[in-house]
Amino acid sequence: MLSAEIIAIGSELLTPEKSDTNSVWLTERLNEIGIEVKMKTIVGDDAARLEKCIRDAVSRSEIILMTGGLGPTTDDITRECAANALGRELEYHDEIEQHLRERFRAWGREMPEINKRQAFVVAGAAILPNPNGSACGMLIAENGKYLAIFPGPPKENQPMFLNHVLPHLDKLTGDVYVRRRVVKVSGKGESAVDEVAAPIYSKFSDITTSILFNKSEVEIHLAARADSPEKAEKIAAEAAEEVAAALGSAVFSTNGETMEAVVGKMLAERGETVSTAESCTGGLIAERLTDIPGSSAYFMAGVVTYSNQAKIRDLGVPVEIIEKHGAVSAECAEAMAAGMLERAKTTYAVSVTGIAGPDGGSDEKPVGTVFIGIADAHGVQTKRLQIPGDRFLIRWRASQAALDILRRRIIHHDTSAETASKG
Amino acid sequence: MLSAEIIAIGSELLTPEKSDTNSVWLTERLNEIGIEVKMKTIVGDDAARLEKCIRDAVSRSEIILMTGGLGPTTDDITRECAANALGRELEYHDEIEQHLRERFRAWGREMPEINKRQAFVVAGAAILPNPNGSACGMLIAENGKYLAIFPGPPKENQPMFLNHVLPHLDKLTGDVYVRRRVVKVSGKGESAVDEVAAPIYSKFSDITTSILFNKSEVEIHLAARADSPEKAEKIAAEAAEEVAAALGSAVFSTNGETMEAVVGKMLAERGETVSTAESCTGGLIAERLTDIPGSSAYFMAGVVTYSNQAKIRDLGVPVEIIEKHGAVSAECAEAMAAGMLERAKTTYAVSVTGIAGPDGGSDEKPVGTVFIGIADAHGVQTKRLQIPGDRFLIRWRASQAALDILRRRIIHHDTSAETASKG
Repeated sequence: MLSAEIIAIGSELLTPEKSDTNSVWLTERLNEIGIEVKMKTIVGDDAARLEKCIRDAVSRSEIILMTGGLGPTTDDITRECAANALGRELEYHDEIEQHLRERFRAWGREMPEINKRQAFVVAGAAILPNPNGSACGMLIAENGKYLAIFPGPPKENQPMFLNHVLPHLDKLTGDVYVRRRVVKVSGKGESAVDEVAAPIYSKFSDITTSILFNKSEVEIHLAARADSPEKAEKIAAEAAEEVAAALGSAVFSTNGETMEAVVGKMLAERGETVSTAESCTGGLIAERLTDIPGSSAYFMAGVVTYSNQAKIRDLGVPVEIIEKHGAVSAECAEAMAAGMLERAKTTYAVSVTGIAGPDGGSDEKPVGTVFIGIADAHGVQTKRLQIPGDRFLIRWRASQAALDILRRRIIHHDTSAETASKG
Repeated sequence: MLSAEIIAIGSELLTPEKSDTNSVWLTERLNEIGIEVKMKTIVGDDAARLEKCIRDAVSRSEIILMTGGLGPTTDDITRECAANALGRELEYHDEIEQHLRERFRAWGREMPEINKRQAFVVAGAAILPNPNGSACGMLIAENGKYLAIFPGPPKENQPMFLNHVLPHLDKLTGDVYVRRRVVKVSGKGESAVDEVAAPIYSKFSDITTSILFNKSEVEIHLAARADSPEKAEKIAAEAAEEVAAALGSAVFSTNGETMEAVVGKMLAERGETVSTAESCTGGLIAERLTDIPGSSAYFMAGVVTYSNQAKIRDLGVPVEIIEKHGAVSAECAEAMAAGMLERAKTTYAVSVTGIAGPDGGSDEKPVGTVFIGIADAHGVQTKRLQIPGDRFLIRWRASQAALDILRRRIIHHDTSAETASKG
């Protein structure tokens, strides 16, 4: 298996404010064609370190991808350092200067003289055109190894990589293709998921698996390797479907989709609608549902009833419920969902009330106590949860649990409709 | 100035799913005491590469911080590689094993034999206790240089760094302290901000400045260097205040706070309240306001009126307005804000209606057209915006603009109340 390394260049990437994101995207693309990333380095605008870094990389890896440091100013040193590290000259390309001058003219400006620096290219390098910026990239072959140099901005380096570098690497790796599937599971722990999933994915010899816990869901990442993209895709899909079948309704996606996208698709397909009545999640469920383009087809309305008065006024929650059971109670969640359904006349209404903290907890109802209600024509159900984490996580996980309960209710609807029509 | 480098260890950090976040936090802490991070390396569970990496780091940097690879399994190779790179032995510490056995017993489990690996320590290293996990850290002094090894999880390595490593580094750097301030500016472009700010921050000789554009706001990062923390703090605060004074009401924070925290604090201080009526932002404004602990003191209620019926039913928007001007119009935003104020009886009501895309745009009202309304006892104002970006950015920027308009209205309230009492 070929190995690659990535060097991100720029002092700003060594401050707390910025971090290198290019390498994540590049890693994904390299993995897809069966190239493993063995190392990443982030180095500042420091010529000695950068040169050494390039020399080391060339000595141990077949493919070296570098991003950044191709701008026009004197702290952009990637061109010089790459040339020095490889023992090559920098060559001036008049056609690059002419092209730059034209770009500037098209913006109604004169090219500053300093931009001439961007017309220098490492001797022997193939020039990679940049339709989205002023810095061209370079692809250098050295003793059967490839060294590619890209500008830093993703919108410049991504098309450059896809159009001018990927095809070369693809040939290099020959017939190795990797395709990924992400199975997402809600309402189960990491080890409980792995206990069911491991016997299945271990049967597939050409699959690498990793299990991650991500805020409120377990993700099973399956990477299938084969000698054609189609075969790799097929193996990945088969494994994902087998794992999903074993885990049952806890699986909400076999293709990495978000919970809100899955729920949205289900509602759209069925021509059903939803409304939300939120307290502790403060609008997060509505926000997630409406994050999906086209959600106006199924999301009708939501309320954020943060105060007790709002719960009474906007949802018709009886004062007695709040006085007797408190605003954080199954009874209140039930009344909120029923009130919202009545008001918005949607197929489903989802409600959440709870204590996100850091204050407001008690012995009986500690921080993290959350009640979720779901109402439809069949009635109202509620569920009590005790959610661990800080305010951010409690709110996020409550929104995830509410969407998951909605998802399961939609599935149940189908089943009970079937049963009804059978019966 | 002392220089440091950070090595993050673990093959999972070289996949698209995971990335190293420890180094950002460590960089921030190092910067505060005047230590610059010159390089970051991310290396997998590959002994040869890791050893070479450590050797290189020791040869060029005064301080080397390493995270990860201290677990009990055989792919946790940091202990061995560090020992080899430094030419030292690994020593078995019986007291670490005993401590581990007790930890496991306290959880009601027997220590698996494999955890014995965690009792090995590089010869001569100071052992850094880990109250939050099973892997202890190490601090190694080598020819006046420091090499610290931490476990990967932030909740384990952060207290370890603060309690056991920072005090040593602090002595090393002597009297150099760096303190940061972040001035946040809304409603102005990067270059317009810098034109005003540059003449001010350039006067300060001990300040490094960087200007970043972050989704919907310009951030001016000021790092002040001095020979005491108090002096550094004072210089940073002075520069931040001077810059803020020059930029006027466009500045919403001189201390890096979020817009929702700033607005929340202003409302809480004044004993005022707010409610929201959202269409295209889908609950995002309510969600951001309620993200702040204690927000129930000022956030009363919100509605997400996504459908036209909901706008009419829940906010009393007249049918004629929607028929004549459309749901995305200044008139509708005005009626939404007025309706919400009437209903929730808050000091302010904020409304947003717009086209977040990707569909729904027209020549007259393209994607990104957003109307914001704000209502209070003095009346209703509206503002039309044309927001660039994709659906995510349009929604985010619309929520930011709405919160900023609320912020300016609160300030204006103060001024007009003063004028009234003076008159």
